[in-house]
Amino acid sequence: MTGMAVFEEISPADFFYRNRDIAGFSSPSRAIYSTLRELIENSLDACEAVRVLPEVRITLRELRPSPTGAFFYSVRVVDNGSGVPGDKIPQAFGQVLFGSKFRLKQTRGTFGLGGTMAILYGQITTEMPAHIVSSTGDRYIHDYELMIDIQKNKPNVLRYKVHTNRDGWHGTLVEFTMEGDYTRAMPKVLDYLKQTAIVNPYADITFVDPKGRLYVFERTIRKLPSPPKETLPHPYGVDAETLYRLIAMTNTKSLSAFLMEHFHRVGKSLAGKVLERANLDPNRSPKTLTPSEVSDLANVMRSFEDFLPPDASCLSPLGEEILEAGIRKELNPEFVFVTKRKPSAYSGYPFIVEVGIAYGGGIPRTGDIVLYRFANRIPLLYDETSDVSWKVIHNLMDWRYYKVNPAEDPLAIIIHLCSTKIPYKTVGKEFLSDRPEIEREILNGVRLAARNLMLYLMRKRRFEIGKKRFDLYARYLPKIARFSTLLSGHKKEPDIGPLLAKVSSLGLESPGKMKGREGSHEQSPKEEGSS
Amino acid sequence: MTGMAVFEEISPADFFYRNRDIAGFSSPSRAIYSTLRELIENSLDACEAVRVLPEVRITLRELRPSPTGAFFYSVRVVDNGSGVPGDKIPQAFGQVLFGSKFRLKQTRGTFGLGGTMAILYGQITTEMPAHIVSSTGDRYIHDYELMIDIQKNKPNVLRYKVHTNRDGWHGTLVEFTMEGDYTRAMPKVLDYLKQTAIVNPYADITFVDPKGRLYVFERTIRKLPSPPKETLPHPYGVDAETLYRLIAMTNTKSLSAFLMEHFHRVGKSLAGKVLERANLDPNRSPKTLTPSEVSDLANVMRSFEDFLPPDASCLSPLGEEILEAGIRKELNPEFVFVTKRKPSAYSGYPFIVEVGIAYGGGIPRTGDIVLYRFANRIPLLYDETSDVSWKVIHNLMDWRYYKVNPAEDPLAIIIHLCSTKIPYKTVGKEFLSDRPEIEREILNGVRLAARNLMLYLMRKRRFEIGKKRFDLYARYLPKIARFSTLLSGHKKEPDIGPLLAKVSSLGLESPGKMKGREGSHEQSPKEEGSS
Repeated sequence: MTGMAVFEEISPADFFYRNRDIAGFSSPSRAIYSTLRELIENSLDACEAVRVLPEVRITLRELRPSPTGAFFYSVRVVDNGSGVPGDKIPQAFGQVLFGSKFRLKQTRGTFGLGGTMAILYGQITTEMPAHIVSSTGDRYIHDYELMIDIQKNKPNVLRYKVHTNRDGWHGTLVEFTMEGDYTRAMPKVLDYLKQTAIVNPYADITFVDPKGRLYVFERTIRKLPSPPKETLPHPYGVDAETLYRLIAMTNTKSLSAFLMEHFHRVGKSLAGKVLERANLDPNRSPKTLTPSEVSDLANVMRSFEDFLPPDASCLSPLGEEILEAGIRKELNPEFVFVTKRKPSAYSGYPFIVEVGIAYGGGIPRTGDIVLYRFANRIPLLYDETSDVSWKVIHNLMDWRYYKVNPAEDPLAIIIHLCSTKIPYKTVGKEFLSDRPEIEREILNGVRLAARNLMLYLMRKRRFEIGKKRFDLYARYLPKIARFSTLLSGHKKEPDIGPLLAKVSSLGLESPGKMKGREGSHEQSPKEEGSS
Repeated sequence: MTGMAVFEEISPADFFYRNRDIAGFSSPSRAIYSTLRELIENSLDACEAVRVLPEVRITLRELRPSPTGAFFYSVRVVDNGSGVPGDKIPQAFGQVLFGSKFRLKQTRGTFGLGGTMAILYGQITTEMPAHIVSSTGDRYIHDYELMIDIQKNKPNVLRYKVHTNRDGWHGTLVEFTMEGDYTRAMPKVLDYLKQTAIVNPYADITFVDPKGRLYVFERTIRKLPSPPKETLPHPYGVDAETLYRLIAMTNTKSLSAFLMEHFHRVGKSLAGKVLERANLDPNRSPKTLTPSEVSDLANVMRSFEDFLPPDASCLSPLGEEILEAGIRKELNPEFVFVTKRKPSAYSGYPFIVEVGIAYGGGIPRTGDIVLYRFANRIPLLYDETSDVSWKVIHNLMDWRYYKVNPAEDPLAIIIHLCSTKIPYKTVGKEFLSDRPEIEREILNGVRLAARNLMLYLMRKRRFEIGKKRFDLYARYLPKIARFSTLLSGHKKEPDIGPLLAKVSSLGLESPGKMKGREGSHEQSPKEEGSS
């Protein structure tokens, strides 16, 4: 035999170095976009983690042309967030798959990858170190220069200084050089910032672009949304692997206590029923389970009917007020309806879908519905047509039923998904996979929104017909009255006021009276033959 | 400060365990599809690596219902390929990011991930070990039962046996249990197998499905395509990281020898010019370069104009004959045109685009162009609308120019990209990112194909008009001739044969005469104002 293969092992950093397309770093233009969004998202997460109103300052400076026709830039992002403990900084910024985002908690970051990936991209395109300054608000400010040893996936610290933190500053500064193409990336970057501002109105974001132009996204409310909480795994999402890990680390002495302590919404009585179904003694130590018992227990847990659904109080949706305000401010439509769906779950992960529909006014007629997609307060701008929301709007909705013509009506749909685990299909966080549970919630939300739009449009048409009729009566009734008075020989014309009022009341209720948000807590509609 | 984050490190296996959506394992149905394709692709690669006509035997058996409403299956794939050396088997199948696919070579697998990911998915859904039997054709057959330690990303061998290899068998058997949903996956699986057979006509593939139905995809030619060769990195794709790695491992004593030995198509004279541009002494040892010299050298290499383009002889395209045969066999169209574009490169990676267009006959009228996408002989079935080919066909082509109406004409476009590095945007290998160089080649190929289709359609219309005219003459000329003869008092009717022949020659050339493949080596057309 010839051509025998060479086997080798590569580090995760090396993997993403070789395959940077899959992390959103496929070209100089895309790299600028991905870098800014990853850093901004880390900053917003770091601020919300410590309940601080976010202030994020972004600067992008052009340094010189790059050999491939793009440019070298210096990128700097500073925030007032939690900061990173001094001893964790090298790994947090210089090691792939090291981070604080691996918990069951609603955060923007999910892969523990984005920030380090941006630094790695900067390094391979400029071979310059990254500069990180951070403090958690204690007495020290830590100041690092580091590079990434890509083959070993380890940080390589070139310089480390400690400063005294006189003002109690907390936050993080990240600064490095990279190859990029801001001119091409600009539309997406600005769109990203604008949409980020819509769903993070409590953040204050400034951006100085390479031409020195300052973009300010001012804070419009000083209230942070309720904080997302870390949660325990739900039994429906459990597999044998999860059970093994929990058994290895648990201090509980009985299976009953084990289930109650490590799983979401499992009380003593439920634990008892589950263990009975699995033929396991509730007093047995979890450490004594055999592999096949572990496997059976996982199967019983995944199929047991009586568990409570995941509690979505750990989630932090936008809420209808913020969503509607964002839509009105940004899109200035004639009609808005927003709805927050009831919490649901897929594979044991709780999630909430929020849907907005906006019609007319500032909404452009583009020949198709304008779709805005958000996940855990991140705007998703790429690969729209692969997203589950696109499928719902273009394949699953029968718009004729709602008397809406997507090709002609000025219509925007806004979808926000929040979850402890967003089912992204790419590491670059571009679009969501079509988990059936999520698809259903989005569909029902869009249906409810479409129904309310239909009611509004019907009322509007009725109003317009009524107005036309009223105008007609208002114009001719006085003439008829005068003529009749003359004909009949009466002196005094009859009072046409009550008559006109009657015509008016037949269909002259203003469509403006129908407020967008009424009915937003209704059950899902039953139209189109499904729920 | 409160809510301080917990920092932790996770292994690559743990990363893909947590984020299996991004590797194509998002649901039981998708998992079946991804498992079969990853195993089949590994088998085909293993056969071609040792120039053996592939025989791949796939069996899927249903075991019992799973707790989530899907099923447990036993999956088994056996091939007659290279086999895996005994001591490498545990890591090759039980460790993520360990493999033989990290080279600059055209292979189906690119991430060193798929097979292990399938086994990992089987393990977490059934907690059963995987069974691997393999031999490289030497005296031993290695027989393993193993599981994956996901947290450590290491194989855990449960059982190991060695058998004597009496018959010189070489190949690999992979067998494990998994949760899946074959009923839902079936259309995609069969589509995948059918399309795989189109572009691998030299492979013999059988599939026994859970109902015991046998699908046979017979070998139609006994000739393997020319083997792809491993190649050196091209200077245009080099970055400082690559240079550092090569400098660390090189045995060359001078920079000149270094460039010639480790880079694609760099001779002594070119090496000299590059080093002169970088102000480096050609006789200096590469190990003495400072970081800024390495960085400068990388920049000079990326921007140097005189390098030869990557040599595509390392690639193994389908070729026009195989592609046309596959299209005719599978789609049975009225007209086919195929073209193999000249080799090109992106970021130093050579690639070749092959384009086919098929019209009429067995091509259905679907209201849109039917798009078939292949990359290194893999059919790509998901997320079509995010693929660069979709963009070319729907956004960049002006079909009216070619007198084609995509909404009405029965039309299929087939795109095959082969490269030492396919720019997939997802680990699940669903679609290609829109690298400008690749986009341009696809566009030019589709334009050439469209132009040839247009010529065919014009000829066909001319033929139809001519035929109509001929039929008219053929019907009335004899009558006119007889009538004239009678009128003029002549006895013998004139011979109308030459007259009819003249009518015929005016536009009666059969469109069938125009063979699809003529002109396939032409330069790219200049229409639509670009090349």
